[in-house]
Amino acid sequence: MYANDGFRELDRQECLRLLAKATVGRIVHTRQALPAVLPVNFSLDGEGSVLLRTSAASELARAVDGVVVAFEADEVDPVAHSGWSVVVTGRASIVTDPAQRARLAHSGPRSWVASPQDVFVRIEAELVTGRELVGGRRMYGLDLTP
Amino acid sequence: MYANDGFRELDRQECLRLLAKATVGRIVHTRQALPAVLPVNFSLDGEGSVLLRTSAASELARAVDGVVVAFEADEVDPVAHSGWSVVVTGRASIVTDPAQRARLAHSGPRSWVASPQDVFVRIEAELVTGRELVGGRRMYGLDLTP
Repeated sequence: MYANDGFRELDRQECLRLLAKATVGRIVHTRQALPAVLPVNFSLDGEGSVLLRTSAASELARAVDGVVVAFEADEVDPVAHSGWSVVVTGRASIVTDPAQRARLAHSGPRSWVASPQDVFVRIEAELVTGRELVGGRRMYGLDLTP
Repeated sequence: MYANDGFRELDRQECLRLLAKATVGRIVHTRQALPAVLPVNFSLDGEGSVLLRTSAASELARAVDGVVVAFEADEVDPVAHSGWSVVVTGRASIVTDPAQRARLAHSGPRSWVASPQDVFVRIEAELVTGRELVGGRRMYGLDLTP
């Protein structure tokens, strides 16, 4: 974490409140030893986890199941030089419990294309960090880790 | 890459044209064995690389110098279910050549907070991939690698 980096660090509750406003984020993982980042839409499951919905056959589902990933959402105004960024870091796993799957089919994230082959991926919010960028403060090197 | 994933793959020129429209992206690297993602603003240096500007003392500068990173920018309309995402993957390095630094001080990305301690970080666009999301097509598991 930077000293005097000009950002206000957000607490977990503030981060989750901001995440709840967002509809699209980015899942970050390692793929073939290279960093990979994929935009996805998502929903929050209570305050404990991020939920994605993807095809059971997708590379994403295979790549992240059981792996620690980062999930990032942000809202930045490049004119006002203000905004926020939140990162959830935790283990991703495909939801296999039938009761959970049935519940998420109703309350979970909607697919932009309905597919009977969808699975839900849960990212446990083990680490939730974020920073608020106040107008005019430095954007570069925004440090999202505690 | 997905078969029939409903996305239009963008060629390098299309990707760079879209990147040129964006002002903020996200740099993805590994930090303490965990995926890390940081929003940054940026500029393109010709068509060959992405340029960031950060504090010489920043953890970002130390973390990415000499490392292969991913840089992502996107523009997604969650209502229209349309947008694009571009990822540049390549080695990041701090610009040390005095002539280049002098040039970038004028033509490179602006800092939102002026600092005499700034350095420029160049990400070589070794791999440039992107997808266009057509309205209503699946967002999940957008695969940004070739």
